Amino acid sequence: MGSNKFNLESYLKERGKKVEEILEKYFPKEEGYGKRVISAGKYSLFAGGKRIRPILCLASCEVVGGDWRKILLFAAGIECIHTYSLIHDDLPCMDDDDFRRGKPSCHKAFDEATAILAGDGLQALAFQFFTHPDLVRNVKKTKLLKAIYIISKAIGFEGMVGGQMVDLLMEGKKGNPRILKWIHLNKTVRLIEASVLSGAILGGAKAKELKALSSYGKNLGFAFQIVDDLLDILGDEKKLGKKTFSDVKKQKLTYPSLFGIEKTKELAKRYTEKAISALQPFEKSALPLKAIAEFVLYRVH
Amino acid sequence: MGSNKFNLESYLKERGKKVEEILEKYFPKEEGYGKRVISAGKYSLFAGGKRIRPILCLASCEVVGGDWRKILLFAAGIECIHTYSLIHDDLPCMDDDDFRRGKPSCHKAFDEATAILAGDGLQALAFQFFTHPDLVRNVKKTKLLKAIYIISKAIGFEGMVGGQMVDLLMEGKKGNPRILKWIHLNKTVRLIEASVLSGAILGGAKAKELKALSSYGKNLGFAFQIVDDLLDILGDEKKLGKKTFSDVKKQKLTYPSLFGIEKTKELAKRYTEKAISALQPFEKSALPLKAIAEFVLYRVH
Repeated sequence: MGSNKFNLESYLKERGKKVEEILEKYFPKEEGYGKRVISAGKYSLFAGGKRIRPILCLASCEVVGGDWRKILLFAAGIECIHTYSLIHDDLPCMDDDDFRRGKPSCHKAFDEATAILAGDGLQALAFQFFTHPDLVRNVKKTKLLKAIYIISKAIGFEGMVGGQMVDLLMEGKKGNPRILKWIHLNKTVRLIEASVLSGAILGGAKAKELKALSSYGKNLGFAFQIVDDLLDILGDEKKLGKKTFSDVKKQKLTYPSLFGIEKTKELAKRYTEKAISALQPFEKSALPLKAIAEFVLYRVH
Repeated sequence: MGSNKFNLESYLKERGKKVEEILEKYFPKEEGYGKRVISAGKYSLFAGGKRIRPILCLASCEVVGGDWRKILLFAAGIECIHTYSLIHDDLPCMDDDDFRRGKPSCHKAFDEATAILAGDGLQALAFQFFTHPDLVRNVKKTKLLKAIYIISKAIGFEGMVGGQMVDLLMEGKKGNPRILKWIHLNKTVRLIEASVLSGAILGGAKAKELKALSSYGKNLGFAFQIVDDLLDILGDEKKLGKKTFSDVKKQKLTYPSLFGIEKTKELAKRYTEKAISALQPFEKSALPLKAIAEFVLYRVH
């Protein structure tokens, strides 16, 4: 990793595998009377996500000199939260999406009640991972409590949940750049930023490092969601694992709908550049974070 | 409180008020683009619950010599979890209940998507309270992490979520006492027991005290749910704030459906007696916990 020839593909694969091993190990066994909802949670959790958020958490821990192996349970918890949000977003009364990651979404493979409960269970499981004795013994308790606080704020009423609410409310309505940015900030950016920050805090980041990584996480988050908006129009259904033009049909408020495709591509590029420039203080040790930012953009350029 | 003439009514009122003050103070402001989902969460949270779970948490803290004022944010978080579970339970694809605490349930007063998100937000808010700096500075961090772990386990796949799943799966099916007890244990008892245990842990309980309080919480939880089953048949709709014979109509697996009313009353009484006898080591300081157990039973006797 001392060289500039950083192999992101094998990095993502290796780290993703570590996260999945932990998820496998700590996920409740599919047995007993409640087996159905455990299977539903597992179905969505192991539907083939890229594990970007937990990998960001681990990479941020490492970039400030922490040992990423010690916080794998924390990173795994973040993936549980992300998966819960996807399950609930896909529900008929929400975005009503029948496919996710190339497979029927949770409420299609099971049913609505099971999907809601599976999402609820995954959120609870995240916090179970965050406070698991096997993690607690590895990290400073003050830092762990701070990291959990940051995540819980990022996904609550004044974060992801609020963002999803307004995303739904704006369907078919005339929006403006201010409200669109607010939706993206809350629906997507906050959890990505919190993944980065929590990893950094657990890794022992100094205030200055946290500031730089907060800027990285925020800009990366915006780039990520803008690219997601673009992929709804420009993407390949097979690669995406979900239907394209879904936002368009639902008249979602998106960057392309407000700015057109070219201007939106330009914006995604600018956010990515800002994310990368925020990494300057870390020099070469930030190669993974830099490569992840480039990868996010690359999906549409 | 040194006397046996313990006034439970004023105790519940006073402690409930303290919990509500904290909920009011720390609940997100009803403003901004995401106002709707914040209002929905607040609507259900302030619909007039008895706050039994947070009060149990505070009382258990006190019975082991802790200062209940220091853990009010923790207790308030437990009420957020309880309210989230009620909102999701009432959804059309779950128990499909239109009334709760005498008012239209959340999805009726708002809509399904908003209700699901309000529940999700309340679960996140609970963990935000559990790790809030204003709580963290008051308590031992190791104990706080342990208390959060206990709660998160109690409400997850192998707890409340699993219990609700099986409760739904058994509708209209022939059950047996074993599966019924499993449902009650997970759907209701675990969170009540965890409320008691977390308060005790935060209050500095010794292992022996925890064991006694675990027995108290478990037996109280069973008594609570059995009485709830009975109230569906024997209760007064006005007092309950919801329709009676709702379980009967849905052919829910309940104690009265398996054992009949008289045997069920007998069982509730037995669980209450066991709960109370578990309090023996605490002598007079356990008067509030004892009175709460008697109150739970009294609702149907």
